[in-house]
Amino acid sequence: MAELSSKEKKKLEKLATMRHSMAHVMAAGVIKLFPEAKIAIGPSIENGFYYDFDLPRQLNPEDLEVITENMKEIIKENHKIEREEVSRAKALELFADQPYKVELINELPEDEVISLYHLGDIFTDLCRGPHVEETSRLNAQGFKLLSIAGAYWRGDEKRPMLQRIYATAFGDPKQLKAHLEHLEELKKRDHRRIGKDQDLFSLHEDAGPGLVYWHPKGGRMRVAIEDFWREEHYKNGYDIVFTPHVGKSWLWETSGHLDFYKESMYQPMDMDKADYYCKPMNCPFHIMMYNEGKKSYRDLPLRWAELGTVYRYEKSGTLHGLSRVRGFTQDDAHIFCTPAQMDDEISEVLRFSLYMLKSFGFQEISAYLSTRPEGKCVGEEADWNSAQEALQAAIEKEGLDFKVDEGGGAFYGPKIDLKVKDTMGREWQLSTIQFDFNLPERFDMTFVDTDGKEKRPYMVHRALLGSIERFFSVMLENYGGAYPVWLCPIQVQVIPVGHNFDDYANDVWKKMRAAGFRAEKDLGDDRMNAKIREAQNQKIPYMVVLGAKEQEEGKVSIRTRSGEQINGLTLDEAIKLIQEKIDAKEMP
Amino acid sequence: MAELSSKEKKKLEKLATMRHSMAHVMAAGVIKLFPEAKIAIGPSIENGFYYDFDLPRQLNPEDLEVITENMKEIIKENHKIEREEVSRAKALELFADQPYKVELINELPEDEVISLYHLGDIFTDLCRGPHVEETSRLNAQGFKLLSIAGAYWRGDEKRPMLQRIYATAFGDPKQLKAHLEHLEELKKRDHRRIGKDQDLFSLHEDAGPGLVYWHPKGGRMRVAIEDFWREEHYKNGYDIVFTPHVGKSWLWETSGHLDFYKESMYQPMDMDKADYYCKPMNCPFHIMMYNEGKKSYRDLPLRWAELGTVYRYEKSGTLHGLSRVRGFTQDDAHIFCTPAQMDDEISEVLRFSLYMLKSFGFQEISAYLSTRPEGKCVGEEADWNSAQEALQAAIEKEGLDFKVDEGGGAFYGPKIDLKVKDTMGREWQLSTIQFDFNLPERFDMTFVDTDGKEKRPYMVHRALLGSIERFFSVMLENYGGAYPVWLCPIQVQVIPVGHNFDDYANDVWKKMRAAGFRAEKDLGDDRMNAKIREAQNQKIPYMVVLGAKEQEEGKVSIRTRSGEQINGLTLDEAIKLIQEKIDAKEMP
Repeated sequence: MAELSSKEKKKLEKLATMRHSMAHVMAAGVIKLFPEAKIAIGPSIENGFYYDFDLPRQLNPEDLEVITENMKEIIKENHKIEREEVSRAKALELFADQPYKVELINELPEDEVISLYHLGDIFTDLCRGPHVEETSRLNAQGFKLLSIAGAYWRGDEKRPMLQRIYATAFGDPKQLKAHLEHLEELKKRDHRRIGKDQDLFSLHEDAGPGLVYWHPKGGRMRVAIEDFWREEHYKNGYDIVFTPHVGKSWLWETSGHLDFYKESMYQPMDMDKADYYCKPMNCPFHIMMYNEGKKSYRDLPLRWAELGTVYRYEKSGTLHGLSRVRGFTQDDAHIFCTPAQMDDEISEVLRFSLYMLKSFGFQEISAYLSTRPEGKCVGEEADWNSAQEALQAAIEKEGLDFKVDEGGGAFYGPKIDLKVKDTMGREWQLSTIQFDFNLPERFDMTFVDTDGKEKRPYMVHRALLGSIERFFSVMLENYGGAYPVWLCPIQVQVIPVGHNFDDYANDVWKKMRAAGFRAEKDLGDDRMNAKIREAQNQKIPYMVVLGAKEQEEGKVSIRTRSGEQINGLTLDEAIKLIQEKIDAKEMP
Repeated sequence: MAELSSKEKKKLEKLATMRHSMAHVMAAGVIKLFPEAKIAIGPSIENGFYYDFDLPRQLNPEDLEVITENMKEIIKENHKIEREEVSRAKALELFADQPYKVELINELPEDEVISLYHLGDIFTDLCRGPHVEETSRLNAQGFKLLSIAGAYWRGDEKRPMLQRIYATAFGDPKQLKAHLEHLEELKKRDHRRIGKDQDLFSLHEDAGPGLVYWHPKGGRMRVAIEDFWREEHYKNGYDIVFTPHVGKSWLWETSGHLDFYKESMYQPMDMDKADYYCKPMNCPFHIMMYNEGKKSYRDLPLRWAELGTVYRYEKSGTLHGLSRVRGFTQDDAHIFCTPAQMDDEISEVLRFSLYMLKSFGFQEISAYLSTRPEGKCVGEEADWNSAQEALQAAIEKEGLDFKVDEGGGAFYGPKIDLKVKDTMGREWQLSTIQFDFNLPERFDMTFVDTDGKEKRPYMVHRALLGSIERFFSVMLENYGGAYPVWLCPIQVQVIPVGHNFDDYANDVWKKMRAAGFRAEKDLGDDRMNAKIREAQNQKIPYMVVLGAKEQEEGKVSIRTRSGEQINGLTLDEAIKLIQEKIDAKEMP
């Protein structure tokens, strides 16, 4: 991965300083509105800054406007921003009515120089700096207050809940504008919003937060994804297995999950005086099958894949749409192989991962290799080394951009993570290829090698899409709801321009269905343009428009969701055109 | 359904009397071996009889041989079997050392005539009879002791565990032989045995009994079933949804499951101070989706299908292979429609059920209609009547053999059950089409009708295969492991007659895979005949045999598992032949 140049670094530092000064200006603006405000902390962050306040009442959007005006005035008044170093006693005296600052001061190490920054004579903050010299260096048109959020003091849910104001700031108003447009676009692409607009899924607080209900249209997309996934797995030498969603404590004791993963597991259920747990992972079940009957080197490699739904406890505050949930379906697989087969297997699994991600339209993919951590690890060092070498060789063979996270692996084996860049420039970690030197040991897995001796197989966990739910959220946001044809919940909307053509429309619709397309028809009373607009809103890739001319000639006209128009196709031509886009996994 | 004729009834009664007398003879034979035996009860049952004993030690198979010899002697000795009516006091005195009999006597009503049956002077039982007159009427070659089983006294797990000897008996040794052959065939077809022989699935006591692990080959069959199921559901106007496996208590309180179904549910899991339950049924989740957003008559009918895995508590003693488990996947669907749509929907769902069952080769199907029970029911009587009429009309339209179980419905709606007859003459209940007047009420489901008023939709639950696990067990036993080609885990085995042809075999194998077949190859060192035998044992429908002639001509020879042989096919011809059988869902 390319490192930042020193010029780029300097630019970023300058931006951070400006944003930090902006945070002080915001605090001054808030105090102007609420002189009794207690102030906490206000750092610069990516693209902007925030500040946390303890205020006499809940902030509302109108307050943000007043604070913005206050800030603009403060900038215009051109206050100097000056550093002063003070004794602890002086600092405590100065902030006597600011309990959060007092707490911070009291926690500073003995030998720490305590510095204040004065914003003219209107605001003083405990701060390490640096800052711009005076507020005229800030651009009054270059910032925007974005939102109000609750935030516990020091992130501790037992401490007071403060109000945080998030803001964005750039030196240049044009950059601000571009960033705000980017944010607006992200909002439009929020998968929760698309999910609602396109009626793809829902979540139900009453019946349990973080549990996903896939509606008919979301279901069609999921079936398309899973059908493709199954087909490709069979083609690529995998077998598909199915295992239970619950297992007795013995299984989780043996696997070690009850030792090191318990806080992420659901609570146990009592059955016949034993504890049963919903599975947080599929691995122990696959191992139970491996251990059913002796295995020989002739049986290996085994590649067992499962769309396995797992249940993990996440704090309710951290749940988010489909990205962070309490139940999700991993596109999981385990590869069991001999050490001699490892190189080929790893190389194949990486190639397959890239193929799968690219099939969904993700072209920019980079790899992260995590190696042996310091401290106690399971497995021989030689095995770690050869596993790491196999992983790195596979990455290099694919010519992938990659970064090594030295010592960043889990205690049980090294791994590759693959991240994709979406159309909005965001990176999402999707695939993982993870060695495991732990479970084969714990479950005493063996195979009889060519020399007749029992040996341990290598075990690799891998998920290509990660979880179907999270992958789906990334896909929704990546495409902003306008998917490649093969994934669209409705691929074809048949639109007669008036009721005179309803029969013809029914006929065409039936043929589109028979061709295997997810086709619907709009026989409503709306005018053609309204029907087309509605279909475009739903981001249906193909509209088949039928009027007098089409009916007379027995032909169809096609419009795509991007506005392209193709008139006078025979039905066969139309079907061929659409089928080709489906097969190529392309946009219309 | 045809009722039994009086002649047939008489024949059955005669058989039962013979078997009952046999039970007494068996008890006498056991007492000869264990004079201290305590005897419990010994009725005639279908195809035979049993008797329960409290014995000083565990019986073993050799004991059964001794008891059989004892019985043959007793029959040969031609004892009279004579009835005697006695007072309660006399009966208690006679059975003073038989505590089970004493318990039975003490429970007889005051006015009951107490009768004994004497087997000559060697055995006396408390018994209502009737019996044959003398043991010469019994056929010493017409019975067989089958097995030893544990049985609680009076079926109560808190009472002593007795030893039960099961036996079969017919008047005619030929009939016995036929029955024993039938039993032998059933044993061979036991799905647990086939599952092991063909490596289709496993269960693991350690990790929780009654929870099924689908191995790669079982997985292939399940994927074939589910792919077909999904495709047909889409074709037939259903949509496929996915819902969570757990739900908060609110959901199960609202649905009523916690009131009337709790003992079949898993215990709750605590999460964030609320109780969560693994789902025993999918319905409440589908209703949550229905209630997401207002529904209009224009939205109906909705047909939502899910391969939903549910978890139900079954006592460990009742678990049996895949037939009775603690977790299984229902091929579930819910239809929500207006009253006006009901007739068509029911008719369609029945037609679709029959189509699905027939697709798996079940041709003999009969229907059972269960109607409104006495007592408290939910729903208007008029709705019950029209629902029952719709069900019956649909059955009659399909010309199905059917039986009405008057008052046999659940309190919430009438239903149709479909039973299939398998190749062994056994009936299995698979499909259910069940009205529900309860849940729409409990969840306050509505749709806005043409008149602008909010009304309740009709709700129908239906499962066509029932559960995938149980259906699979029926299929395994029905076909005895030799499935129609489309379901076979391995459809094609490529067999070179020697290593000279391994390259050609690899080539053919790749082409078979590319054609979409589940093809494997046997490149081992065994001779051709051994390879063919092995493939036949595995019941692989097609063996593609490759020798010098085939290689030279670039052709293949085919053998089917039933021994058919077709030589000199081009590869395309072979592929076409196999594909046709797959498409037709036929045997090879």
